[in-house]
Amino acid sequence: MMTNPTISLIERRVSANLFDASHNLADAEIEELVRLATRAPTAYNLQNWRFIAVRTAEAKTRLRALAWNQPKVEDAAVTFIICGVHPDAETLPERLQPSVAAGYMPADMPSAWREAAGAQYADPQTARDEAVRSATLGAATLIYAAEALGFASCPMVGFEAEGVARAFGLGANDVPVLLVAVGRAAPGNWPQKPRRPLAEVLEIL
Amino acid sequence: MMTNPTISLIERRVSANLFDASHNLADAEIEELVRLATRAPTAYNLQNWRFIAVRTAEAKTRLRALAWNQPKVEDAAVTFIICGVHPDAETLPERLQPSVAAGYMPADMPSAWREAAGAQYADPQTARDEAVRSATLGAATLIYAAEALGFASCPMVGFEAEGVARAFGLGANDVPVLLVAVGRAAPGNWPQKPRRPLAEVLEIL
Repeated sequence: MMTNPTISLIERRVSANLFDASHNLADAEIEELVRLATRAPTAYNLQNWRFIAVRTAEAKTRLRALAWNQPKVEDAAVTFIICGVHPDAETLPERLQPSVAAGYMPADMPSAWREAAGAQYADPQTARDEAVRSATLGAATLIYAAEALGFASCPMVGFEAEGVARAFGLGANDVPVLLVAVGRAAPGNWPQKPRRPLAEVLEIL
Repeated sequence: MMTNPTISLIERRVSANLFDASHNLADAEIEELVRLATRAPTAYNLQNWRFIAVRTAEAKTRLRALAWNQPKVEDAAVTFIICGVHPDAETLPERLQPSVAAGYMPADMPSAWREAAGAQYADPQTARDEAVRSATLGAATLIYAAEALGFASCPMVGFEAEGVARAFGLGANDVPVLLVAVGRAAPGNWPQKPRRPLAEVLEIL
């Protein structure tokens, strides 16, 4: 029986804690990872995200101090600050215009979606949820892209969000949702942690 | 040059709007999708998620009425309600015990993580963010697993969260984060929508 490479990848991926500090990534490799990450879906195709690739020694030192002093922030080739942005419905006409130009999206749809999104995200909690959701969809896609390209990765939530926002010039509507370290694994990482039994988490109706 | 199958998959995936209503999924296929989804990472390995697979006609009708009457909720073989759960640090000793038993996690680490997580999630917004994040990591992994197994999928945020919580018996700490329809694509779906230029979303430091 053929093994499906993407299924194997999902099954084998682990969050690495130890990275080879001598390994670097070129700009083109960082760009390729983010190009792939942005293939992730977002509501209304909002693409309400920002990716900050922290890879110089100076920037890593600044970020590590705001991330519980975790060594992997500096040891990994790059640590991404992945931000979601509170949705701004006014951006939709521009972001959907290429779909209209390509001929499949009706010309009046972007303004209809702008109206729907404007109503949906008027509630600040709903807007924040969408920022967290979009950034996480991008982060997950970046993690699988990194694994496919032979890199190890680690998502991190242990950081001071307000400090990161100040130190890296985030806007008022930018939410730093996850850090994702990407690089070459060093020896000594743990195996994948066991998961809960399916019966505890799945209900079929 | 070899094409990397996971990279191709990330590049070609689209959110399907039209599904073949004659296509069904067996329980074993639904279980396989969720088994793979739960390989996604979560903070502290909390695994703070629930997957409700809606696939009978009765349950689909109930869900569609709460999801802006979108036909794909009924046409897809199954529509998952993917919930995040507000983290409960007290669950960590049990969820981490298998990692201790396997010999790599020090025996005193689960209680240390319980303490750290208890402090981190005392703030309700932080707890909700983690529920949204974990559910979204699981949803993204389910979407890629479905694509790898030859199914189409569509994440949806257009639903009444409180109505879904009531109609499907969610607990007070369960957040319905995304619906994900999975099935066989029908003809007529749109191509992938164009993405923003990389320069708008990526900064390299």
